[in-house]
Amino acid sequence: MSPFDEFEIIRLLTKTIGQPRAPFSKIGDDVSFFPSRPGYLVIKSDMLVGKTDVPRGMKLWQAARKSIVMCASDFAAKGVSPTGVTISLGLPRHLSKKDLLQLARGFRRGKDEYEIEILGGDTNEAGDLVIDCAMVGFSEKIVQRSGASVGDFVVTSGRFGYSASGISIAVKGLRAEADFKRRALASVFMPRARLDFGLGLKDFFSASIDSSDGLALSLYEIAEKSKAGIEIERLPSDESVHDFCVANGMSVEDMVLYGGEEYEIVATIPSKRLREARRRAKELHLDLIVLGKITDDSGKVILKEDSRWRVVERRGWVHFR
Amino acid sequence: MSPFDEFEIIRLLTKTIGQPRAPFSKIGDDVSFFPSRPGYLVIKSDMLVGKTDVPRGMKLWQAARKSIVMCASDFAAKGVSPTGVTISLGLPRHLSKKDLLQLARGFRRGKDEYEIEILGGDTNEAGDLVIDCAMVGFSEKIVQRSGASVGDFVVTSGRFGYSASGISIAVKGLRAEADFKRRALASVFMPRARLDFGLGLKDFFSASIDSSDGLALSLYEIAEKSKAGIEIERLPSDESVHDFCVANGMSVEDMVLYGGEEYEIVATIPSKRLREARRRAKELHLDLIVLGKITDDSGKVILKEDSRWRVVERRGWVHFR
Repeated sequence: MSPFDEFEIIRLLTKTIGQPRAPFSKIGDDVSFFPSRPGYLVIKSDMLVGKTDVPRGMKLWQAARKSIVMCASDFAAKGVSPTGVTISLGLPRHLSKKDLLQLARGFRRGKDEYEIEILGGDTNEAGDLVIDCAMVGFSEKIVQRSGASVGDFVVTSGRFGYSASGISIAVKGLRAEADFKRRALASVFMPRARLDFGLGLKDFFSASIDSSDGLALSLYEIAEKSKAGIEIERLPSDESVHDFCVANGMSVEDMVLYGGEEYEIVATIPSKRLREARRRAKELHLDLIVLGKITDDSGKVILKEDSRWRVVERRGWVHFR
Repeated sequence: MSPFDEFEIIRLLTKTIGQPRAPFSKIGDDVSFFPSRPGYLVIKSDMLVGKTDVPRGMKLWQAARKSIVMCASDFAAKGVSPTGVTISLGLPRHLSKKDLLQLARGFRRGKDEYEIEILGGDTNEAGDLVIDCAMVGFSEKIVQRSGASVGDFVVTSGRFGYSASGISIAVKGLRAEADFKRRALASVFMPRARLDFGLGLKDFFSASIDSSDGLALSLYEIAEKSKAGIEIERLPSDESVHDFCVANGMSVEDMVLYGGEEYEIVATIPSKRLREARRRAKELHLDLIVLGKITDDSGKVILKEDSRWRVVERRGWVHFR
C-alpha cells in the first residue's frame, strides 16, 4: 500500500464510484450534505482505529470521546451544529465488561459536551478497536473549503504545535515543563471540537476547514479548492511550543505545520469583515489568530521567514504513508 | 468477552449512554430516525469486518457490495427508500491498488443496484478489512418492530436456509446438487436487500424487521417489541433445502431458524388486509409467504411440529458468542 496516501485512495475510489449528482455535495469536503426542507441535511462519518488513532496513554473512554470529537470538529469547521450520531463498533475479543462501560462513558461524555443525540449503531468483533461515527445535522448554510477570495485574511481558532508536542511526550517520553506537559497531553488525550468558534463566527467565513490532517495540508486544501494561494506572515504558535522544541532539538515549524491531529479551525475572512469578526470573537471570549492572506498565486502556500518567503511543503499527517 | 452477546452489549452501552429524547427514535430498531421536514430523516450504520462477515470464497467487490446491502436491507424492512450513504474504510496494509479498485467496483455496484448516492467517507489503515456504511433516507412513515397486534399474520419475503447452506458449502466444503449449490452460494456472496418487497408492501405491514440475525431472533424481536407472541405453522423453507440438509445429516430447522445472514424481510400484516397484500404481491411478482400468526402469549415464539407446539429457541447469528 506504500505508494498510496489517503488522498490518492479517495481519488481512486471516487473515480470508479463517481461523484454524487447535483444537488448532492461532491466528495472531498469535511462533510457531505444535501437538501433537506428547509436547508441541508449534513452527514459525516469518521473512523477511529486503535492502532493509528489511540496513542499510548490514552484511556478507552478518551478514545470513545475522541471518535465523537473527530466528527464534531468537521461540523464545527462547516459552521453546522451536529444533531445526532450513530456509532459502529469493532471490538477486540479481549475487551472486558469494564472496558466496554468505559467506552460507553466516553460516548456519554461526548454526547453531553456537544449536546448531540446518539441515535443507534452497530457492534462487531474485530481484531483492533474500531469506532466509526456517522454524524448528522441540519443547516441553512455550509461554509465550504472553496470560498476564499484574494485579499481574505487566513485565521485559526488557536495555537498549533501542542498536539505534536504531546505525542512526543506520550509516545517518545520526551521531558517537558509541568504546565506545558499538561496542556500538550490534554490536546492529545482530550481534543476539543471547536464548535464555539465555528458556530460563533461562521457568518464571517468565506472558507473553512478543520485542521486534523495538519496545518500545512489544511492551508493547501483551502488554497487548491479556492483556486488561490496563501501567504503566511507568522505561524500560529507560542513561546511554550518554541521552548519545548528548542529544548528537545526539534523544529518548531515541523511541529506547527506538519504535526496534525490539532482539531483547530482554519478559516478565511474577507478583509472588510475582519474588524467585526474580531469584535464578535472578543464578545465570545475566543481567540482569533490571523496568520496571513489569500493571494492570486494559485495553489501555492508560502511562509515568511526572516523576511524571506519560502514554499510550505504539501505534507502532513496522512494515513498510509 | 464471552459472556456477552450483541444484545447485551447494546443494552450495556445504552444504559450508560441513555436513550435519545423524543422525538428521536429509541435505540433498538433496524434504523434510527427523527423529524425532517416533512416526514423523517432515516439513518443507519452497519459495519462489515473481514474476519466475521467475509466468508472464504467471497471476492473483495462482493464484500464491498455486501456492506451496502447490509444497510439497504434494514431500510427495506422499514419501508424506506435509501437516499445516500457514507462509507468509512479500514484497510489492511497488504491491499494492492487492484484490490482497492475491486472494492470501489463493489461500491459502485451497490450504488447502481439500489440507486443511492455515495456521499463521502473516510479511509484508515486497519489490521483487518473494515467497511462501515452510514445510510440515510427520508420517509413519511417508518414500519417499526413494535406494531404487531394479536391475530396479525406473520409473513416473509422468501425462503430461508439457503444462506446457511451456502456457508456450509463455501466454508466446510459440503457437496450439493449443482442448481442448489449455485443458489445457496449466491445468497451468501450476492445477498439482495429486499427493497422490492419492503417498498412495495410497506402499506400493509403492522411490524417489520430484516432477518440478518436469523429468523428465530427476528421473530423474537417482533414478539418482544410488540408485547405479543408468535405461533409458526410452517417454516419458510423448501424441498431443496430439506434435501441438502438430509443428505448432509443436518437439521433443517437449525438451518432455517438459526442460520442467519438471510436478508429477507419478516413482517406482520393485519388479517383483514392479507388478501389485498397478496394481490399486490402478485402484481409485483413477489413471493409473500405466510408462516403463522401473532398471539397474546407475550414474548413466546412457538413452532408447530407434527401437530405439537414447541418453543423456538431465542438464539441466532449473534456476534460475540
